[in-house]
Amino acid sequence: MRAYDVIAKKRDGKALNEDEIRFLIHGYSRGDIPDYQISAWLMAAFLNGLNEDETLYLTQAMLSSGRTLELGSVGKPKVDKHSTGGVGDKISLILAPAAAACGVAVPMTSGRGLGFTGGTLDKLESIPGFRVNLREEEIIANLERVGFAMTGQTEDIAPADKKLYALRDVTATVESIPLITSSIMSKKLAEGVDGIVLDVKFGSGAFMKSKERALHLAEAMSSVAARMGKKAVCVLTSMEQPLGRHIGNSLEVAESIDCLHGRGEADILELTRVLGGRMLDIAGLARDPDEGEELISEAIRSGEAYERFRASVEAQGGDPAVVDDPSLLPTAARSLDVPSPRGGFVAGIDAEALGTAALFLGAGRFTKEDSIDRSSGMTVRKKIGDFVDEGEPLVTLHYNNERNLSQALDLAARAYVLSRSKPPPFRLVHEMIQQG
Amino acid sequence: MRAYDVIAKKRDGKALNEDEIRFLIHGYSRGDIPDYQISAWLMAAFLNGLNEDETLYLTQAMLSSGRTLELGSVGKPKVDKHSTGGVGDKISLILAPAAAACGVAVPMTSGRGLGFTGGTLDKLESIPGFRVNLREEEIIANLERVGFAMTGQTEDIAPADKKLYALRDVTATVESIPLITSSIMSKKLAEGVDGIVLDVKFGSGAFMKSKERALHLAEAMSSVAARMGKKAVCVLTSMEQPLGRHIGNSLEVAESIDCLHGRGEADILELTRVLGGRMLDIAGLARDPDEGEELISEAIRSGEAYERFRASVEAQGGDPAVVDDPSLLPTAARSLDVPSPRGGFVAGIDAEALGTAALFLGAGRFTKEDSIDRSSGMTVRKKIGDFVDEGEPLVTLHYNNERNLSQALDLAARAYVLSRSKPPPFRLVHEMIQQG
Repeated sequence: MRAYDVIAKKRDGKALNEDEIRFLIHGYSRGDIPDYQISAWLMAAFLNGLNEDETLYLTQAMLSSGRTLELGSVGKPKVDKHSTGGVGDKISLILAPAAAACGVAVPMTSGRGLGFTGGTLDKLESIPGFRVNLREEEIIANLERVGFAMTGQTEDIAPADKKLYALRDVTATVESIPLITSSIMSKKLAEGVDGIVLDVKFGSGAFMKSKERALHLAEAMSSVAARMGKKAVCVLTSMEQPLGRHIGNSLEVAESIDCLHGRGEADILELTRVLGGRMLDIAGLARDPDEGEELISEAIRSGEAYERFRASVEAQGGDPAVVDDPSLLPTAARSLDVPSPRGGFVAGIDAEALGTAALFLGAGRFTKEDSIDRSSGMTVRKKIGDFVDEGEPLVTLHYNNERNLSQALDLAARAYVLSRSKPPPFRLVHEMIQQG
Repeated sequence: MRAYDVIAKKRDGKALNEDEIRFLIHGYSRGDIPDYQISAWLMAAFLNGLNEDETLYLTQAMLSSGRTLELGSVGKPKVDKHSTGGVGDKISLILAPAAAACGVAVPMTSGRGLGFTGGTLDKLESIPGFRVNLREEEIIANLERVGFAMTGQTEDIAPADKKLYALRDVTATVESIPLITSSIMSKKLAEGVDGIVLDVKFGSGAFMKSKERALHLAEAMSSVAARMGKKAVCVLTSMEQPLGRHIGNSLEVAESIDCLHGRGEADILELTRVLGGRMLDIAGLARDPDEGEELISEAIRSGEAYERFRASVEAQGGDPAVVDDPSLLPTAARSLDVPSPRGGFVAGIDAEALGTAALFLGAGRFTKEDSIDRSSGMTVRKKIGDFVDEGEPLVTLHYNNERNLSQALDLAARAYVLSRSKPPPFRLVHEMIQQG
């Protein structure tokens, strides 16, 4: 087989078979096929698409390019949650301990911040001492003792995906639904879980701006999961405004701890319940999703979720005093209110603009080499449906360095759409997609 | 400007501007932009196309990536001919001296054999001593003394095209009309000519199998030439059978010398007249193409074209005795007739199969590293419209090495389509395309 012929076949819009896709992906992973051939193939796949079969083969090829976690010894149902990423999305920090408190083993591997969205690993590293790179035996020990582990992916999990993702990132081939599907699913299925709940986000604060494309992604991921014999539910949720009230690493950890104390924002608690309810249903630990939601709420109310979070921080080398007293988390030296230019109801928020403003304040990275300012970010004072007076703060920026403050201010000030009449209520959860 | 954004723009089907294309091509040529980004862009350009403007910008960017021949000192009209390549196409060897005899300066840069088609440089090297790599001052001296030069391209002519072509060759992005157009035109316009006649070939013995695609290519090349202020005529010609009676390097040189003595096959002489007539018309050396054709015929009839060829061989270090007596050219040790399996009229010939058979006999290269057997090839005994008896030879194979003889035999035997009724006469010249 020759890479040339596989590229030409995809270029001509034909469907590739399993052998052809495995040949390409394993060859690339081993270094036998050069970057320049794979990037031509990626662009052909981007433009001509990959069908359901090809997406499955690609997922399997990336999965089998490395090893998978061996969780057979963990005597609990193993279910994970994955979010496609959104501004202010700190659900993992609340959901993982809540689900663990209900008896699920959650081997949650997470990533770094990407563009205008934050990353769970970056957030957790706001906690002094917290180690995000666990070895396999540490993951298993945490799953058994604490019920969940929050870790980065080891190098030997789906290495082909890592290499392919880096190439897509520089060849304008990231935004392809089959390529996104196989990238997410190969990594998640490598965790050795029985099932997965996928939070597929759309809107201004998500990577997929349209609900329609998010729905396609959800369907593609559900199909791959079903064909690989895994239970999967996709929940389509709106990111037309930030989740919760805080954007930025230590700010979001503090907000998550508040939520674990039952003092969270309504949207965070709603999404935690919905996703958690599905996790318990899939795990067989609830009769149905509704009972699952009740159990999740009870795990938070009882303080058990909080205790699990605290135990996990301790198990992963973090300082539990910070969990007990979040005011010990790093805080920014300065803050600045962004006033509303006039009065009115908040009818829309450009969440990407707010995420990018936080990025300008240092909460994320413009390039892979940038370091993160863990205490910077913002507090979202007004959300959709709120009334704001002229001059009243829309958001408060938290920062240590004034260098990019004006850009952040500009972005934040222009992110709000105000209207005279009260808009319809914001709808967070839109669809559930489940196959098989 | 970032290569990423230019790739994304073409991926999204938008037209690139001149700066974007120059940025990409010069950046690649200098080594600032890596292969893997250019190959993604090439696939996007292949699938989404390049419009007339973009094709022009690409041609100009490749042209300006290197230097151009300075022929201002040559006091004659400078016109070249380029063929897109075909099986048995040795027209350059007859046309260049004939046009030179009529007063045109022909700075003909040629290439090596490609796939199933031969290359002018490979053919000329059958003549002992012939040097195909002339320096610029030698080209100019030959144009002044002999009227034409037959040479390979120097390294500093359109280096971006060389690099890009090599990448297209391994990423399945060769067969794109705008990419082919800019590749041909950047090299040809670098010769510093006033005008060019393009022999755009279609059919089984050409790279473009369909007349429609060849017409698109002709239109794209004419448009680029016109917009760069050059006179250009495209002549669409059929390669549904080999040109002339011989395929293979020294065999084609001998056939060309025969043609220069006025003893050529009708199709070779027709095409030489038609292309040459246009060259003289463009050069302003004939009132119209018809008069140009007459002048070309007269240059051959008078022996002046032959004398120019002989002088050129001598000027480029070749042995003129071989021109005087072509039997001194290398000849193959063995030959084998391929008999017709039954009687009938020749209704069709798979010229690519015959070209590939010659390749198997050693007349061309399967890989860039292969050496060429200059004396091997074949004689085409029957052409379209001829009657053949059962057992009568269709072609005669000439070879020195039996290694791939059976493959060549197979291909040649299956290349002929026979029919009971006489087919319509073969039509060589189909269209003329001229802009501006």
